[in-house]
Amino acid sequence: MAQAPLATAVSLAGGLGFLAAGTNTSSLTASLSHAKKLLNHPEASPSPLSVGIGFIVWGSDLSTAVQAVRSFVPAAIWLFSPRLTTDLVTWSEKLREASGGKSQVWIQIGNVAAAVEVAGLCKPNAIVVQGADAGGHGLARGAGIISLVPEVADALDREGHGHIPLLAAGGISDGRGVAAALTLGASGVVLGTRFLAAKEAEMKPGHAEEVLRTSDGGLNTIRTTLFDVVRGTNRWPAEYDGRGIANRSVEDEEKGMDSEENRRLYEEALAKGDGGWGKEGRMIAYAGTGVGLVREIRGAAEIVEELRRDAIAGLEQTRARF
Amino acid sequence: MAQAPLATAVSLAGGLGFLAAGTNTSSLTASLSHAKKLLNHPEASPSPLSVGIGFIVWGSDLSTAVQAVRSFVPAAIWLFSPRLTTDLVTWSEKLREASGGKSQVWIQIGNVAAAVEVAGLCKPNAIVVQGADAGGHGLARGAGIISLVPEVADALDREGHGHIPLLAAGGISDGRGVAAALTLGASGVVLGTRFLAAKEAEMKPGHAEEVLRTSDGGLNTIRTTLFDVVRGTNRWPAEYDGRGIANRSVEDEEKGMDSEENRRLYEEALAKGDGGWGKEGRMIAYAGTGVGLVREIRGAAEIVEELRRDAIAGLEQTRARF
Repeated sequence: MAQAPLATAVSLAGGLGFLAAGTNTSSLTASLSHAKKLLNHPEASPSPLSVGIGFIVWGSDLSTAVQAVRSFVPAAIWLFSPRLTTDLVTWSEKLREASGGKSQVWIQIGNVAAAVEVAGLCKPNAIVVQGADAGGHGLARGAGIISLVPEVADALDREGHGHIPLLAAGGISDGRGVAAALTLGASGVVLGTRFLAAKEAEMKPGHAEEVLRTSDGGLNTIRTTLFDVVRGTNRWPAEYDGRGIANRSVEDEEKGMDSEENRRLYEEALAKGDGGWGKEGRMIAYAGTGVGLVREIRGAAEIVEELRRDAIAGLEQTRARF
Repeated sequence: MAQAPLATAVSLAGGLGFLAAGTNTSSLTASLSHAKKLLNHPEASPSPLSVGIGFIVWGSDLSTAVQAVRSFVPAAIWLFSPRLTTDLVTWSEKLREASGGKSQVWIQIGNVAAAVEVAGLCKPNAIVVQGADAGGHGLARGAGIISLVPEVADALDREGHGHIPLLAAGGISDGRGVAAALTLGASGVVLGTRFLAAKEAEMKPGHAEEVLRTSDGGLNTIRTTLFDVVRGTNRWPAEYDGRGIANRSVEDEEKGMDSEENRRLYEEALAKGDGGWGKEGRMIAYAGTGVGLVREIRGAAEIVEELRRDAIAGLEQTRARF
């Protein structure tokens, strides 16, 4: 999930980049216009625009989404975290209709039960299977893709939905992870954390440094609701939390600081400008456990090409060991 | 980690089964004698006994371990969870010496820092890389093997320890998981949860049923210290908890029940005999997120052969997609 420069760079390299609508759809039209320009997409083209849009369903306005999809016809729409599963049915139908059936509908889930439910109710074009290693928001209680992808695949097979492609998310940062996800039964992969260090992500220097500096991804990131609490973005459904790099706020909470005080200190740091990321700072860097594998800033196209090349080479080498 | 019938069945099928010494080494000599008999191991054999022994270092007595290793010379010794890393140095040296250098030393870690540290200090024959999906005890804060195995591999390479084989653990239940672990950079895999449903594990019927019944492994297992609290086994170092199937005790705790009351109810259920596993019960079933992929009781040899066959087939098929 990104802004137009990163999303379009990924698409131009043969992937599919997504624009983050998140819970704020106000800048979506501007982002889509920007992407259209960067892709040199002809006004009268019958093909969809080669980017997707990601919506956080519980916090987004459906009529704004419908308008954006009708005007720009993105290649795919990615739906995540509804208040009720039935909201996904409405969103899928309305957005499919708005695109004249040209936009694929991808739905992100974090457990087997949800995968089976959305497969039956929404007939998605793909299911994004998010494991517990993923950065940003996800289910507080979940499995890594090592067991989640195969179990989802088997359950969908049993229920007659085995034709729906699975896209694995969570903890994949390089070609080894891509190859692993494919052997687990995924048709494709989605990466977020790896692209935090894409040149086109244009992160603030302090934020980018923190992503590159952080090693030992399991030890130095944490799943918590604290980041939402201090930011005041805690309207997420109860079963969600988010994974990010452990910082001063996390340390203070572990030592017993109450939420109000922690939030006050966050706002104070924010008001000072770049308040600092990492162990000593309070700025928030959402990232998955794969952050430890992200060690340099690279162009998005180079990242996409390397992922593809290394995944294939990895499969080849591993196969050759037998 | 198992008793002699399961451990030897795995070894006879071409794997390497481990006897669980755990924190109680009192029955270790009996277990080893039993294994030796089941393996028809000749008294005067110069080869080590084809089983390993797993020790929980913080809770085990080194002199008992030394005696057992000297008398039986197991193929491998698996060390886990010391109070201090320096304890691993002592244990590695003494047990290597006791076996006349014939027993391999495997050390289990759960993050990159520990892997680098033990590689330098203990020169282990293999490092077991335990991801957060693993059942039973492990680090409360960790990553799944999807990112942990590659990051450990890279860090060991950089520090000059790239020759040490990595064995991946956590969330692997079938050939897809095995294939994935190998593409991530592991030389081998270790499985616990899958063998809960081995015929030779001889579990109580209620326990076995619960393992087979449990689906959606990420949703229906949980990492918690509660199981240790109610069992009174809470002397584990502070950074550890354990993953098991969520049960009535977990539900009660989530509703606010205090530990004393929860423990009392556990003991009451225990005193009644088979107090019941699963959502309505209080008996404890440690299991990893891969438990949802475990759907039938099978012989250990059949499980080992299927894992090997499916892993190779999976690699072949995935490679063929490109």
